[in-house]
Amino acid sequence: MDKLDFGHHISQQFNEELVDVRDRVLAMGGIVEQQISQALIALTEGNTDLAREVIKNDYKVNSMEVAIDEECSRIIARRQPAASDLRMVVAVIKAITDLERIGDQAERVARVAIKLSEMERPANEYLELQNLGVHVNKMLHDVLDAFARMDVEAALNVAHEDIKVDREYEGIMRQVITFMMEDPRSITRMLNTLWIARALERIGDHSKNIGEYVIYLVKGKDVRHTTLEQKEAEIKNGDE
Amino acid sequence: MDKLDFGHHISQQFNEELVDVRDRVLAMGGIVEQQISQALIALTEGNTDLAREVIKNDYKVNSMEVAIDEECSRIIARRQPAASDLRMVVAVIKAITDLERIGDQAERVARVAIKLSEMERPANEYLELQNLGVHVNKMLHDVLDAFARMDVEAALNVAHEDIKVDREYEGIMRQVITFMMEDPRSITRMLNTLWIARALERIGDHSKNIGEYVIYLVKGKDVRHTTLEQKEAEIKNGDE
Repeated sequence: MDKLDFGHHISQQFNEELVDVRDRVLAMGGIVEQQISQALIALTEGNTDLAREVIKNDYKVNSMEVAIDEECSRIIARRQPAASDLRMVVAVIKAITDLERIGDQAERVARVAIKLSEMERPANEYLELQNLGVHVNKMLHDVLDAFARMDVEAALNVAHEDIKVDREYEGIMRQVITFMMEDPRSITRMLNTLWIARALERIGDHSKNIGEYVIYLVKGKDVRHTTLEQKEAEIKNGDE
Repeated sequence: MDKLDFGHHISQQFNEELVDVRDRVLAMGGIVEQQISQALIALTEGNTDLAREVIKNDYKVNSMEVAIDEECSRIIARRQPAASDLRMVVAVIKAITDLERIGDQAERVARVAIKLSEMERPANEYLELQNLGVHVNKMLHDVLDAFARMDVEAALNVAHEDIKVDREYEGIMRQVITFMMEDPRSITRMLNTLWIARALERIGDHSKNIGEYVIYLVKGKDVRHTTLEQKEAEIKNGDE
């Protein structure tokens, strides 16, 4: 169970429920990561079968969200959690909403990949989207890891990465505008490229959100809507 | 208090807490509605002062989200709510996340309005964005009303409206692509138009999400990830 300390409850059953809900979030996150990877492969390989598979599998992510939400409500009603247990449950309720929306973005990438598969392919095989996609998928992986290990430093690092992702996205946008101006026939294709870049950038945002819930969970402080510097100061304030 | 029935608790204090949290969500929603209206005025009038005001005021929405979240955690810890009270608290936790993101989209519209204010203005004064904006702001207003009155029919109607909003958005996108192809010099301006259309369309999505929480709250059924027909069937199933 790594650094997680669910061993302080009188009820062994309650411990198991919290560990179970944690594991379900990680399992949901694993499926979402896979959805992103496959959507990116579908894009670069022009593999429409794989893209359709990603679209089809979104229901798995959705049904995991609904099931975990129900489990959280059950835990609140039955166990009346307080303090860090309650924060755990609230953080999970929030985090799975972001995970589900990351899943939606992966599905969106797959849908656009199908459209792009019918158009002329760029010489670089969408390298810049590939790079951005790998970057945000690593953010998601890292933030799930931070959640599993209750590692606030790692969660904070995801917020750092999000700034880089935003810059990458801006770079792609500038490039796209240049291409469209040079060759108006490329407009439709370039807009589709932009939709994918935007979807990937949103995945970065959602991963950052999850990182903020991890900090809230561990430190008991709500660091949403704060700057990176404020988050860092909050974390250095030592444990409660 | 309309149709809300918080009068069944032994603790008068608990009633007041639930009514208070409900009122705070409505107040937060009212500010978000105003942010959208002002962002739209800033856009059509090219009023950058007003746009900056919208950007500045986003902190109000953010701090209301944090405060309501804290209040919900306190209620869970202190009152140990069950059944419909618990659903109320969980629905609020979910709904304010969407409200906050609607606020972010209003801020986004204001930021793009500033950029557009420096560019050539279209003859129709962004009429199509104005129409879309009024439409999604009405959706938000209606869904907050549905939440206040626990009106599932009204909440369902918001899901209906979202389909129309998606069509409006598609129409704007087609128009934008046509303009860009006809006049490549308009590309930057047209992309900004598209960003606003996208932000408004997202407000429709978030309003629909809130409608789903209202249905969950009243009927005890999670209708996310279901079709309109499935939602309608669920509502017609009579009260629990």
